[in-house]
Amino acid sequence: MSVGGDGRWVETLAECFDAVLFDVGGTLVEPAAPATPLSELVPQLRPGVVEALRALEGSVQLGVVTNTAVMDAEQVRGHLRSVGIADLFDTVVATAPLGVHKPDPAPVRVALERIGVAPERALYIGDSVDDERAAAAAGVTFGFVGPDLVWTLERLTRQGFTPQAGWCPPPRREPDPGCAAACQDRFDRLAKPPGSLGALEETLCRLAGIRREPLPAVDPAVCAVFVADHGVAESDVVTPWPWTISRQVAGLLASGRGLGSTLARAAGVTLEVIDVGIATGATPPGVRNERVRPGAGDIRSGLTMEHHEVEAALAVGARTAERLVAGGARTLCVGEVGIGNTTGAAALLAWLSGEDPMALTGRGAGIPDDALARKREVVAAAVAAVPDDTGPLEVLSRLGGLEVAAMAGFVAGAASIGVPVVLDGVVTLAAAALAERLVPGVRDAMVASHRSPEPAAAVGLELLGLRPLFELGIRTGEGGGAMLAVPLLRATREALAGTATLDEL
Amino acid sequence: MSVGGDGRWVETLAECFDAVLFDVGGTLVEPAAPATPLSELVPQLRPGVVEALRALEGSVQLGVVTNTAVMDAEQVRGHLRSVGIADLFDTVVATAPLGVHKPDPAPVRVALERIGVAPERALYIGDSVDDERAAAAAGVTFGFVGPDLVWTLERLTRQGFTPQAGWCPPPRREPDPGCAAACQDRFDRLAKPPGSLGALEETLCRLAGIRREPLPAVDPAVCAVFVADHGVAESDVVTPWPWTISRQVAGLLASGRGLGSTLARAAGVTLEVIDVGIATGATPPGVRNERVRPGAGDIRSGLTMEHHEVEAALAVGARTAERLVAGGARTLCVGEVGIGNTTGAAALLAWLSGEDPMALTGRGAGIPDDALARKREVVAAAVAAVPDDTGPLEVLSRLGGLEVAAMAGFVAGAASIGVPVVLDGVVTLAAAALAERLVPGVRDAMVASHRSPEPAAAVGLELLGLRPLFELGIRTGEGGGAMLAVPLLRATREALAGTATLDEL
Repeated sequence: MSVGGDGRWVETLAECFDAVLFDVGGTLVEPAAPATPLSELVPQLRPGVVEALRALEGSVQLGVVTNTAVMDAEQVRGHLRSVGIADLFDTVVATAPLGVHKPDPAPVRVALERIGVAPERALYIGDSVDDERAAAAAGVTFGFVGPDLVWTLERLTRQGFTPQAGWCPPPRREPDPGCAAACQDRFDRLAKPPGSLGALEETLCRLAGIRREPLPAVDPAVCAVFVADHGVAESDVVTPWPWTISRQVAGLLASGRGLGSTLARAAGVTLEVIDVGIATGATPPGVRNERVRPGAGDIRSGLTMEHHEVEAALAVGARTAERLVAGGARTLCVGEVGIGNTTGAAALLAWLSGEDPMALTGRGAGIPDDALARKREVVAAAVAAVPDDTGPLEVLSRLGGLEVAAMAGFVAGAASIGVPVVLDGVVTLAAAALAERLVPGVRDAMVASHRSPEPAAAVGLELLGLRPLFELGIRTGEGGGAMLAVPLLRATREALAGTATLDEL
Repeated sequence: MSVGGDGRWVETLAECFDAVLFDVGGTLVEPAAPATPLSELVPQLRPGVVEALRALEGSVQLGVVTNTAVMDAEQVRGHLRSVGIADLFDTVVATAPLGVHKPDPAPVRVALERIGVAPERALYIGDSVDDERAAAAAGVTFGFVGPDLVWTLERLTRQGFTPQAGWCPPPRREPDPGCAAACQDRFDRLAKPPGSLGALEETLCRLAGIRREPLPAVDPAVCAVFVADHGVAESDVVTPWPWTISRQVAGLLASGRGLGSTLARAAGVTLEVIDVGIATGATPPGVRNERVRPGAGDIRSGLTMEHHEVEAALAVGARTAERLVAGGARTLCVGEVGIGNTTGAAALLAWLSGEDPMALTGRGAGIPDDALARKREVVAAAVAAVPDDTGPLEVLSRLGGLEVAAMAGFVAGAASIGVPVVLDGVVTLAAAALAERLVPGVRDAMVASHRSPEPAAAVGLELLGLRPLFELGIRTGEGGGAMLAVPLLRATREALAGTATLDEL
């Protein structure tokens, strides 16, 4: 993936803004642990920072507004100097001397006054809700920082600087109805009764539209399984399984001895396992380390992830789709591992659909009655706490898991490059429904493999307007159901490619 | 497969009969081509002949009654001597010197007089309707010869020598509940949520019971596609398709360019195509010739096949299952080609279930409204003409097709040797329901792949108590749906074989 595009974003950005202000910790440099003494603070630049600042230098004014209880502006400049970027800033505002801190807008206003820029001509980039609130109160456009600053600014520019545009979903690529029709036409000419492959025929023609190929490729098929832990599973409130099992399952999958890996081999699918938020221990061997943070927060706390973490996870997902397709994948499957994640999935789908959260909450991997009763209460309370007009990123930060955000990004990323994504069970459906909220229309790139027995699955399928290929009571997770659909799609493709036509008879 | 059992059949047979008479060509030796000159006749023993005769020798008298226009009894003995069995016979009757030929009963009576046995104490084994008629007219019990003479006599004995016992369904082999339980126990020990493979897990454990293997083999999987024509399709009453298409489709399947052959390759299934009753033209290259007669009669005539043809087709099916399993198959799929055969399938399933024939009749390969209306009337009239207390063979002779009878024999044959059969669409379900009538319990060896949109399919599944794996609107015939189920079964088997167990975590 090109993170910087062709650099034209600088020109566009400079047309909109005269200044760009930055938070420091978590935005320009990696965040320090909370209790780190000043003397031990060793700043480390975040990805794309130098490239972004140098690209902007000369086109707009640059400033820093950072919350600090202990440093003045010169000390902040000293730290920025140690990583070579101090001289790029026209102003640096530290909050300590002002006596107020973000989310108070005063520090942002001070910075703008010093460089003589009106709030409506300024953009503030930060990584926290306090940054966002300070910008909003100061009348300044805000963007959440993503995994790479150039990537962030380029996408913000493309989206037109709406608020909370820190993760900008890549634009959806429209399916080509001509290719879908050409596929159906080819089916109709085969030496077989018209339409006799039923839903498989329809699905392959949908793939033809998505892939813009009248005879759509199915292979190579690759399944991305995103793994993360959930704070709510740390106690035994909603599940009796210890949450450390997620990491063990990820390791098993990478070793070829997980359920998902045996199904992958049998289905002719390549499996990739991605740690996007395992809570404890190192990423297991063979698992790709894209850990955004160690485990999502407890859904009962009202905050499972910070906004920037949601965005980072979305970006991991989108990047993964682009990388796998760059590596040759023509069909993507998506799956997940995360003890406790059907809790968040039920909550997300209940919130998105307006359906009764109690009714949508199921047994997940098979919890007993008492755990189910508690789980239902947890889901209902979590959904009730999220106002109806909440945006999709905010919803993810309250109800989502890291793997859910990553899968939403994965689906959106795949849709942007015209590659179909075969969905799996209820957690993937929650992610897909979120992706559809983020980028309306990405559902066109999705294929539903099966209807899981989790009650929320039916709601997810309905929200997406997708009809599953089978209903077998599968609740494996790990991409299992999605991968089992691949042989059916492959066979349908082979039938289309290899069967004689009527005029050959 | 043991064809002879434990030999106790000789004792039973000797209690019922004092003599067993045999036809020669097609019964004791392979049939010669009609125009073979006498000087070029080189007899070849059929399977099981020597074993059967030697087993019977001393317990009953043995005789030969053969139609021949050119030989006398000594010449016939000479030929039998050339294959080493002449001395086993107490009498040899050639029809030429008598001036009459079977179906005239005189030659049979002559043989019985010579050895001093009453007709009611004699059994005649032959391979043709003329043989059967001659025996009936002489008051002698008749049996059609099967693929192996020991097998034939053993099965005839077990069935108790009812008239028209030419095809005796092989005894069902009971599934082993211990193996099914061991399979489930193994699933339960895998590092996955219990039961998370849903219906696939249940199905594989059923296979374990059928195959009597805790880890049941799925591969090699072989699909037998039986092809036959139907008199009702010769006019355009029930279908606008010319019935000659069946033969063309059979040829396409054998050439690898039929829909079923492309699906077979993609699903990893070996395809065998069997002509059991193509109406016109030679059996296409690559198609196995087991043609019982050229096309079934028109269902509107009240007789689609003679009894002996039903039995011959059943025997072709049973033999096919045994042969494919002897060749290594561990899973069998069954399919058919036959323009017009959903008409008979609807009639059979309506008769078997007592459901409304009009409601059970569907569009098959996709006929228009006017043809559907006519088809419904044809089905209703055909069903109404068959009394409630009609036996299954008689029902087949009135409503069945040659491929339907063959598939019923195939299913029964597979069940008798403990090999599962994956069913396809509505015609295979009709055959399977018939097989269940013939041999109650053979349904235990069946797996339903999909629910076809034909209305009778649901009735067939209900009669059999089977739940299909998917419902995709498939109406391909040609074993298509059955073969598409194989990758799912294979993947489930691989999951069971390859996934780590909980105690490895």
